[in-house]
Amino acid sequence: MTISMYETSVPVFVRVLQNMSAVLDKAAAHAAARKIDESVFIHARLSPDMFALPRQVQIATDIAKGGAARLAGAEVPRWEDNEATFAELQARIAKAIEFVQGFGAAQIDGSEERDITFRLAGRDAHFKGLRYLLDFVLPNLYFHATTTYAILRHNGVEVGKMDFLGAAALGDAPGA
Amino acid sequence: MTISMYETSVPVFVRVLQNMSAVLDKAAAHAAARKIDESVFIHARLSPDMFALPRQVQIATDIAKGGAARLAGAEVPRWEDNEATFAELQARIAKAIEFVQGFGAAQIDGSEERDITFRLAGRDAHFKGLRYLLDFVLPNLYFHATTTYAILRHNGVEVGKMDFLGAAALGDAPGA
Repeated sequence: MTISMYETSVPVFVRVLQNMSAVLDKAAAHAAARKIDESVFIHARLSPDMFALPRQVQIATDIAKGGAARLAGAEVPRWEDNEATFAELQARIAKAIEFVQGFGAAQIDGSEERDITFRLAGRDAHFKGLRYLLDFVLPNLYFHATTTYAILRHNGVEVGKMDFLGAAALGDAPGA
Repeated sequence: MTISMYETSVPVFVRVLQNMSAVLDKAAAHAAARKIDESVFIHARLSPDMFALPRQVQIATDIAKGGAARLAGAEVPRWEDNEATFAELQARIAKAIEFVQGFGAAQIDGSEERDITFRLAGRDAHFKGLRYLLDFVLPNLYFHATTTYAILRHNGVEVGKMDFLGAAALGDAPGA
């Protein structure tokens, strides 16, 4: 296999979102076991001027859906940002995974030079596809996935880096 | 330009490390301005069982140097983990940037199927080059870079996501 725009986007997004889902599952189980109201975690943030947990998940999923759609030259759907429970966050992640999996290699491979323009920080930002993926999408996706993990771990949820990375990071995977 | 193993590794590692350096610079300036001993930040961590700041930087730099070297089929140098000041962490980051920049596209392109084996979690882990880059190196690098940022921001350092992402994430960059 050679590296490609598809291989570096859709399957990566799916893994990040699946691992984020597993981390949130552990948080929900932790809350239930200790009879901690889940709103405690939903309102948690690392700093007063950082986003709380739901917004981290909303942005991560937005980055993934925008990333896949824009690389494929498709419309980016708008989703309401109204999740306020672990179950609702899980549903949003599942919806994002399903959405990005709707794009195949034929739609995304060769998008390195595709012109991508979208509103960012109050102006139209212009990227070529490769730069969009490497400089914007992946750093943002990992930033919000890690921050989601960090908020939960900071609040006592028993997760470890392997939950964030997933089994693929151990190597020896099928097809490795 | 087409996507390649080189373009998705060395220049990405360099950007992540440069942005990490800029975040640490802001932390050092913040500490100096408020007359906070820098050891307060050096000992900071997000959870009692997570690594403190220096180990996050050490691992991020290790991931970058190991990533570049292994993809190129070169020996991975061992560095002592003894940094205990902002200046020493900056020196380690600079050393890592210089090391990874020593590898060119000719050494790394085409490494998708290269067999990579190293000790991981107490055993020999086997990867193909592409899987190593996408499933191990990039997630780990972003994880530790984000955690470095999160530790500092949690402790009041005035950094924002753009410090983490760097200017390239705004698009409209030269060559974009």
